[in-house]
Amino acid sequence: MTTQVETTTPSAVLDRVSLVLDAFDGPGRLTLAQIVRRTGLPRSSAHRMLERLVQLRWLRRQGRDYELGMRLVELGSLAVHQDRLHRAALPFLHELHRVTGQVVHLAVLDGSDVVFLEKIGGRMAAAIPTRVGGRYPAHCTAVGKALLGFATDGELDAVDADLLARKTKYSISTGAALRTELAKVRAHGIAFEREESVPGFSCVAAPIGNIGEAVAAVSICGPVTSMRLDHQLAAPVRMTAMGIWRNVDGGALRVQPTLQQRSRPLLGGPTAVRPRSAVAAAPQDLQYA
Amino acid sequence: MTTQVETTTPSAVLDRVSLVLDAFDGPGRLTLAQIVRRTGLPRSSAHRMLERLVQLRWLRRQGRDYELGMRLVELGSLAVHQDRLHRAALPFLHELHRVTGQVVHLAVLDGSDVVFLEKIGGRMAAAIPTRVGGRYPAHCTAVGKALLGFATDGELDAVDADLLARKTKYSISTGAALRTELAKVRAHGIAFEREESVPGFSCVAAPIGNIGEAVAAVSICGPVTSMRLDHQLAAPVRMTAMGIWRNVDGGALRVQPTLQQRSRPLLGGPTAVRPRSAVAAAPQDLQYA
Repeated sequence: MTTQVETTTPSAVLDRVSLVLDAFDGPGRLTLAQIVRRTGLPRSSAHRMLERLVQLRWLRRQGRDYELGMRLVELGSLAVHQDRLHRAALPFLHELHRVTGQVVHLAVLDGSDVVFLEKIGGRMAAAIPTRVGGRYPAHCTAVGKALLGFATDGELDAVDADLLARKTKYSISTGAALRTELAKVRAHGIAFEREESVPGFSCVAAPIGNIGEAVAAVSICGPVTSMRLDHQLAAPVRMTAMGIWRNVDGGALRVQPTLQQRSRPLLGGPTAVRPRSAVAAAPQDLQYA
Repeated sequence: MTTQVETTTPSAVLDRVSLVLDAFDGPGRLTLAQIVRRTGLPRSSAHRMLERLVQLRWLRRQGRDYELGMRLVELGSLAVHQDRLHRAALPFLHELHRVTGQVVHLAVLDGSDVVFLEKIGGRMAAAIPTRVGGRYPAHCTAVGKALLGFATDGELDAVDADLLARKTKYSISTGAALRTELAKVRAHGIAFEREESVPGFSCVAAPIGNIGEAVAAVSICGPVTSMRLDHQLAAPVRMTAMGIWRNVDGGALRVQPTLQQRSRPLLGGPTAVRPRSAVAAAPQDLQYA
């Protein structure tokens, strides 16, 4: 007996929807024929699913082309802004950008990649090809090294390889080099990166959370010509990470982000930076050096 | 005969997934019991769906709570950045922010709301409670009035009401007042808004596209105390809209966004602003006044 109504398990349908949406990761606009080719789904059921996704605004159709739709923009934005970590971090990130003048990133670990949850930073931001929701190999970025240095053993397994893919010629490319680097990160509570992810840019990152349980990392990035990668530059980043951790973790002990203001951006100047409230807010149980 | 495997139509499954994700629009974190209450789905099938969505990273689970997951952040970001309009607009939006010093928005019409596709603007941006992916009633915002003024009759039907909900005490609240306002927008190709969406802020917006077929709108927003809502302030916004339209529409006629730089932010200063290349780039078929 045949019926007109196609039936299947919910789980199988979810996998198909996921497969269809994954197909848009790259080209952007796809015709029905291209989606059928990329997903291997039967043409008729692919077409029915696409039309339903258009009705739900997960996709939109322009002539014969399908594109990701406005409902995904809304859901993605909700996912970021409902995130407790993001909410706790946002005022600190703005303050870090104001004080240092550099591009500020907030990122989380996802497998062997980092995914950026926030990016703040005026005009220079456009020169750095990262974006909220975008991903980079963790071992190529300062935020990724900060996260891996403070990660669990299970999380570290995801990047356990002898040879690692590189983003630039300066990227760490062997497991041995990465292990040496991560030992430094653990020792100092800070990760440096010089043109390892983006040519022409350096970054300084600090993990948010304790060794073995970092939940995110924060970084500042700027032109390699103007950023001196030393521990003076690391101070405001580390203090920001501490402030965020206290804000997301404590709840009762919320602090206002008020890093000490400087009259000009913090680029290797001679004066030591001592973010007052962030120091005052340093929780006792943090293991930063 | 009963089977262990639950079967249904793909369309019904999609509706359920959509219902489950919609439930997160507001509270952020939900337990299984709350999701069952909000969606009306049977507990067991809701639970199976949630667990599968966690595996797909559309949701994540923290203890007993479910939250929107990282895959939605990625898909939402892809949806924005693959958007042809967004890509064409981005350099113009940065330039508009640089030249005016104000917070810049790019928005599209979605039913009776506008959805923001981009928001650019240093520290002041944090004071304005809009966000990429967020929505506002169109008739309360400058971008919305610009879009409605240049909308199709079909799109206008979505806001055809005698009484309109207000965001502030200055919001347009009647259909008659909105029609008068939209006639002005059509006459001048520009929409003004003074504290109609956010207390303390004024906006100037221009539609992107021709009357009856605007695809988006661009605006600048700043403190009501410092923005003089006149046509001098309108010029760079209108020129930006023209530049974007030419860039997204033409393709062959791409122009670089180089509005004339001023030594200080454009806030009611005495000098007329004449964005050179944007004027040079004005397409012949545009109907802006």
